[in-house]
Amino acid sequence: MRNLNEETITQAVLARNNDMKDARLKEVMTSLIQHLHAFARETRLTEEEWAAGIQFLTEVGQACTPTRQEFILLSDTLGLSTLVTAQNHRKPQGCTEATVFGPFYVDDAPDYALGADVGNGMAGEPCFVSGQVRGIGGEIVPGAKLEVWQADSEGFYDVQRDGGPAQGRGTLLADREGRFNFQSIVAESYPIPHDGPVGRMLDAMGRHPWRPAHLHFMVSAPGYETLVTHVFREGCEYLDSDAVFGVRSSLIADWVEHAPGRTPNGGESATPFYTLDFDFILNPVAKEKVA
Amino acid sequence: MRNLNEETITQAVLARNNDMKDARLKEVMTSLIQHLHAFARETRLTEEEWAAGIQFLTEVGQACTPTRQEFILLSDTLGLSTLVTAQNHRKPQGCTEATVFGPFYVDDAPDYALGADVGNGMAGEPCFVSGQVRGIGGEIVPGAKLEVWQADSEGFYDVQRDGGPAQGRGTLLADREGRFNFQSIVAESYPIPHDGPVGRMLDAMGRHPWRPAHLHFMVSAPGYETLVTHVFREGCEYLDSDAVFGVRSSLIADWVEHAPGRTPNGGESATPFYTLDFDFILNPVAKEKVA
Ligand SMILES: [Fe+2]
Ligand SMILES: [Fe+2]
Repeated sequence: MRNLNEETITQAVLARNNDMKDARLKEVMTSLIQHLHAFARETRLTEEEWAAGIQFLTEVGQACTPTRQEFILLSDTLGLSTLVTAQNHRKPQGCTEATVFGPFYVDDAPDYALGADVGNGMAGEPCFVSGQVRGIGGEIVPGAKLEVWQADSEGFYDVQRDGGPAQGRGTLLADREGRFNFQSIVAESYPIPHDGPVGRMLDAMGRHPWRPAHLHFMVSAPGYETLVTHVFREGCEYLDSDAVFGVRSSLIADWVEHAPGRTPNGGESATPFYTLDFDFILNPVAKEKVA
Repeated sequence: MRNLNEETITQAVLARNNDMKDARLKEVMTSLIQHLHAFARETRLTEEEWAAGIQFLTEVGQACTPTRQEFILLSDTLGLSTLVTAQNHRKPQGCTEATVFGPFYVDDAPDYALGADVGNGMAGEPCFVSGQVRGIGGEIVPGAKLEVWQADSEGFYDVQRDGGPAQGRGTLLADREGRFNFQSIVAESYPIPHDGPVGRMLDAMGRHPWRPAHLHFMVSAPGYETLVTHVFREGCEYLDSDAVFGVRSSLIADWVEHAPGRTPNGGESATPFYTLDFDFILNPVAKEKVA
């Protein structure tokens, strides 16, 4: 421990882990230290680059506020979020795939009755969403809870605007047949917040900050694995270059445009409107996991 | 790009690097993404662990202030700083070894004449430091600049205390023979700041936050590689378990205790005092690097 050098430092740091009581923490920290050191060795990281990295991470932390999580953006843009989501949600073929959670969920969104307008005054072209929640065996999942959230037509979530009411987010309960429907606005492509350090990183890497148009869902029901996913809009130009690597083919759906006239909720629209029909197929929790 | 999963995500993220103009940035980011993903795969990182990691890094960033750099502490305690220092300062045998920079250097420390008391009123047992700066060929390095900094007897650097004057830090110029001397206080062991997220991490890992007693030096002279190092105090109990992995055998020196009486600067001390004599051997900049 008194003769540390480039060759011996990694083993010396790992040796210090011997007193760790928590076996899982030891496993995680051992892997972290090994990969961190391997990265520095492999790149022959210079002191100037190390200092730039320290400064960058500091700025990422300092850009975080109660309504902005820059480290989640960093994880998302480096594909780590997609990897962690994927390896924790291995599911049978046929189940709706999960995708990244993103930083804009809030856990106290307003409750709405089926058919309500969760846009709640948000500007944008009307969109009527419907679908059914079923299990992988085809069985109806009655009363599933659906939490939905989306950006407005300018690409901002309500939490990105100071004050103001909840808009474009809400919680609904599917009916006894597992069916749900609600009104909102049609989703549009939007850039992730890119006026901070992650935006500067993307710029330096020659990458754009855009996400293809999508609607977020969290679907939960007793006995089933909770599903966090998006529905993407077919035809969107960023489907092949999502800044956060969230797209799955199976999650792309047709958002059908309709001429002005009769809407699915029995009203009349003086402007064009959209409809989206998408079913969610849930994965039952393994029997041994049910209490 | 539309069918990302656990197996394909890493290649998809790397493919997005193709538009990067800066070849070195591409090299660094490619290695970073590969090791970040390998870490998550190897540990089968869970979503809860990922979220705890995001929260931890956010807290590290938010603990940073103009006088506290928690990300440097994190790098230091994980041995990354020592690795980066070592691989950027490969030197011929016989040169004084470099060690970690640490977070407490400031670049506008007061200038002192040789023989002055850089403690500047800092409480602690007097210590008289002397030595000579030479090159690896034995040649004298006249007029070398020495920047020194150290903690007080309670383990705090001046910058960790609000306001107040510069204490325990200063800039001196060696004489024509490369010789230097100054007064300060004897260095004591101190814990790195451990009331923040890095302290909590060390605690969870069963590690203590202590550093063995040391005096920081940055020694620079035209034609020589700038040396950032410490001198450690022989006999200190943390020499074998420095929280930041900074110890090198060659940097441990005897800090000799003396009974009250005549001091090296010709004064009288009514209390015991210490002396430290340590020479710095600099590495010449390679000929082709000299302008
Ligand atoms: Fe989103
Ligand atoms: Fe120090």
